[in-house]
Amino acid sequence: MNVNNGCVLVTGASGYIGSHCIVTLLEAGYDVVALDNFANSVRGNNNESIALQRVEEITGKKIIFYPCDLLDIEYLRKIFSQHKIDSVIHFAAMKAVGESMQFPLLYYKNNLIGMINLLEMMKEHNIFNLVFSSSCTVYGEPEKLPITESNETGKSVTNVYGRTKYFVEEMLRDLSRADERWNIIALRYFNPVGAHASGKIGEDPTKAFTNLMPFLSQVAIGKKDVLTIFGDDYDTPDGTGIRDYIHVMDLATGHVSAMKKLEQGKFGIKFYNLGTGVGVSVLQLIKTFEKVNNVKIPYVTQPRRQGDISTMYADPKLAEDELQWKAKFTLEEMCRDFWLWQTMNPNGYKSETTTHTNGH
Amino acid sequence: MNVNNGCVLVTGASGYIGSHCIVTLLEAGYDVVALDNFANSVRGNNNESIALQRVEEITGKKIIFYPCDLLDIEYLRKIFSQHKIDSVIHFAAMKAVGESMQFPLLYYKNNLIGMINLLEMMKEHNIFNLVFSSSCTVYGEPEKLPITESNETGKSVTNVYGRTKYFVEEMLRDLSRADERWNIIALRYFNPVGAHASGKIGEDPTKAFTNLMPFLSQVAIGKKDVLTIFGDDYDTPDGTGIRDYIHVMDLATGHVSAMKKLEQGKFGIKFYNLGTGVGVSVLQLIKTFEKVNNVKIPYVTQPRRQGDISTMYADPKLAEDELQWKAKFTLEEMCRDFWLWQTMNPNGYKSETTTHTNGH
Repeated sequence: MNVNNGCVLVTGASGYIGSHCIVTLLEAGYDVVALDNFANSVRGNNNESIALQRVEEITGKKIIFYPCDLLDIEYLRKIFSQHKIDSVIHFAAMKAVGESMQFPLLYYKNNLIGMINLLEMMKEHNIFNLVFSSSCTVYGEPEKLPITESNETGKSVTNVYGRTKYFVEEMLRDLSRADERWNIIALRYFNPVGAHASGKIGEDPTKAFTNLMPFLSQVAIGKKDVLTIFGDDYDTPDGTGIRDYIHVMDLATGHVSAMKKLEQGKFGIKFYNLGTGVGVSVLQLIKTFEKVNNVKIPYVTQPRRQGDISTMYADPKLAEDELQWKAKFTLEEMCRDFWLWQTMNPNGYKSETTTHTNGH
Repeated sequence: MNVNNGCVLVTGASGYIGSHCIVTLLEAGYDVVALDNFANSVRGNNNESIALQRVEEITGKKIIFYPCDLLDIEYLRKIFSQHKIDSVIHFAAMKAVGESMQFPLLYYKNNLIGMINLLEMMKEHNIFNLVFSSSCTVYGEPEKLPITESNETGKSVTNVYGRTKYFVEEMLRDLSRADERWNIIALRYFNPVGAHASGKIGEDPTKAFTNLMPFLSQVAIGKKDVLTIFGDDYDTPDGTGIRDYIHVMDLATGHVSAMKKLEQGKFGIKFYNLGTGVGVSVLQLIKTFEKVNNVKIPYVTQPRRQGDISTMYADPKLAEDELQWKAKFTLEEMCRDFWLWQTMNPNGYKSETTTHTNGH
């Protein structure tokens, strides 16, 4: 395929979702200008992104990359001036829930100022097509299930990370109300897991993390001793928390579908859940992972963590109707693909010669 | 009185509430380091604040002033390094409701980044005492009257200006939860009017404005032809909107009471309404202004404006109990003092030789 669909600037390009999405964008005929500050991804010795080098291997295409922090508005301005950018996909944000409660100012600074600077530069360069990475955390404790896009947002958000997503959604809503040139889609991700089928790219958290799949996968490979399940007394069939896990490659195609929607004409702002619509418990995920990959995952249970929600899963119908997008991968495939990435890259991207920064 | 109560950094110092508050702070024995970017106040030919020169006349004391924009973090850092600051009172913000709906990005940029930069600098210099200018707009359409501090905030906020205040309140709440060194009071102002009794300082909006008292006062003095009342069919005794007008000098003493509270020990974060507790309709305010000042104010009525709220007035009891503060000035005094300022300064501060910037 040799079409050209225009140039997309992607922030947080070197991260888990960003890197997978760029595979899909390149395959769909978009050019990509990629930005990352390496706050949560691995930097090569010459300021290159290891993850994006792998994406180039997978796709056989070139990515223009800048090691740009969105707080550096002059650097950002330079990039916007040097490229003819048509649209922006904004992944860059800090995303560790626990850390966000410990260091709220860091989260507000990065996630809000980053977004505001990016919007300023877009406006300054007459670019008004934006896809924003939002999250199901904006719903807080859901008032009804499955969660539709008209569930209330903001009211019962249980952590700072989620509040930064909610605040940005509200800013974008105000922007599109005030200026009809804006054309914005906020995608509310449920729980992304899995990896690209090549095993070349995947989730490589460089900070302390508590997300379930990377944790259980590190237990399976012997880098951690035991998995901790927080709470086995929730009001769910097996007592453990229920989430809507979605394959990261399904998320990736969701972004291409969002791009197509933006290109069809102006509508202001739209919000879409990206989930499978199926709730899976912690125990179910462990059992599936063990079975598919033929591994053992020892676990212990501890009390519920404050702020954790019992059950969340999406109603994905709106994205199906309006974006013609639907999650395709099964839970088994999510487990298989994550494990392939993990076993091919037991140290993540750090097997290469790399420097590691943590962005604090 | 020759006590020294320490040094307060005041942002937005040259504005309406900031300048009046500084009179009270100086009289209460505080030193003041004052900052303003002149976005909505008058700059002298040598970058001095005309309003603060008047404050120096009133008090016979000196104010250290910097023409600093809070978006300029390096300038801010320099100021924090050069002075031994004990506490911060943060007035600086854009505040025109209508303008905020037209230019949301400008409001988010100034009000959020300004606050985040200030908090960063406070933390960097180990200063954790903060009084924040919030607003009754965080309550949106009130669910019950009078409005207590436990009324829900955020849910039905009708404009961008109010959302910036709500977002900052939530940021501050998260900060104080994460780090017990913070000691923060957010003061939710109702409708400030009036002026210092000397007539030397007062409200001098440099932009297009729609606030009631400056508008009716300019009609009274002949600078505008007629006052427009938006909506005379509200469910109120005379059909016009009801607000809790409070004398700006009462607000000013409220800040000194908040400072005293901060100095008594750590409590995390507290929110207080600053209002009189008395609701006054638009027609009542006009009649009182006419009678007290012996002027005529022709008015016309137009339909309600979108987002306007029918009735708001405070329950001021919490501030009375915990800050030992209570509004003292009557509606008659608010009208008299505003009019004295208006007649002594028919062109506001612009009668002096000044440059006028509008901050866009």
